[in-house]
Amino acid sequence: MIIDVAVQSEPLTPSDESPVGSGAMVRFDGRVRPEENGGPIEALVYEAYMPMAKTQMENILSELAQSWPCISARVRHRVGKVPVGETAVIVEVFSSHRAEAFALASAFMDRLKQDVPIWKLNATARAQ
Amino acid sequence: MIIDVAVQSEPLTPSDESPVGSGAMVRFDGRVRPEENGGPIEALVYEAYMPMAKTQMENILSELAQSWPCISARVRHRVGKVPVGETAVIVEVFSSHRAEAFALASAFMDRLKQDVPIWKLNATARAQ
Repeated sequence: MIIDVAVQSEPLTPSDESPVGSGAMVRFDGRVRPEENGGPIEALVYEAYMPMAKTQMENILSELAQSWPCISARVRHRVGKVPVGETAVIVEVFSSHRAEAFALASAFMDRLKQDVPIWKLNATARAQ
Repeated sequence: MIIDVAVQSEPLTPSDESPVGSGAMVRFDGRVRPEENGGPIEALVYEAYMPMAKTQMENILSELAQSWPCISARVRHRVGKVPVGETAVIVEVFSSHRAEAFALASAFMDRLKQDVPIWKLNATARAQ
């Protein structure tokens, strides 16, 4: 499985490149919601432990590919200030058939939250 | 849940509109693979029973929203000739959190194959 992972401060864009032979694309975008812990916010700030974050995501994708072999998986995670409505993480998975792409994308997001050193540093409160 | 379904012969494009408050977007694209039943093809032709296809998809989405309430679901299914590599169906689901969007999009695709009168009429063989 082709694995392409990056952590970046620039806004995220999907690749929309379809590998030859793929019959299914599953994309997940995680976007900053307008409230956090019950209060309105205008942005979230994400921080990553850079020496580990990218490698750990690559390792998780390799491991998940054992269960759900796909053609390719591309992940982009943003760090720094991410305004409400903008995308903090994009996962794009291409496969021959849909079941493995849904399973891999969903399982990756579960593992990302548990096992990758990227966290919300704080929220910027919105003026009332 | 906002439901927006269409069946069309024109090429499909995602909406990429993010409803306010959504934290998760799951998109599925089903694309025509370069082979069908073991032989190379250049296109598939999809046919729909139009009086039922759109309504049935809307009904399935309404039903699935009982289990997995999301903010919106948009489906576009193409009919007619769809060349290899092009998209035959797009499903875009927006929700507050990711679990219900993954579940609804995946379950919708299962139901689409079983319960919606859209079928592959034939494949156009690729010249060898």
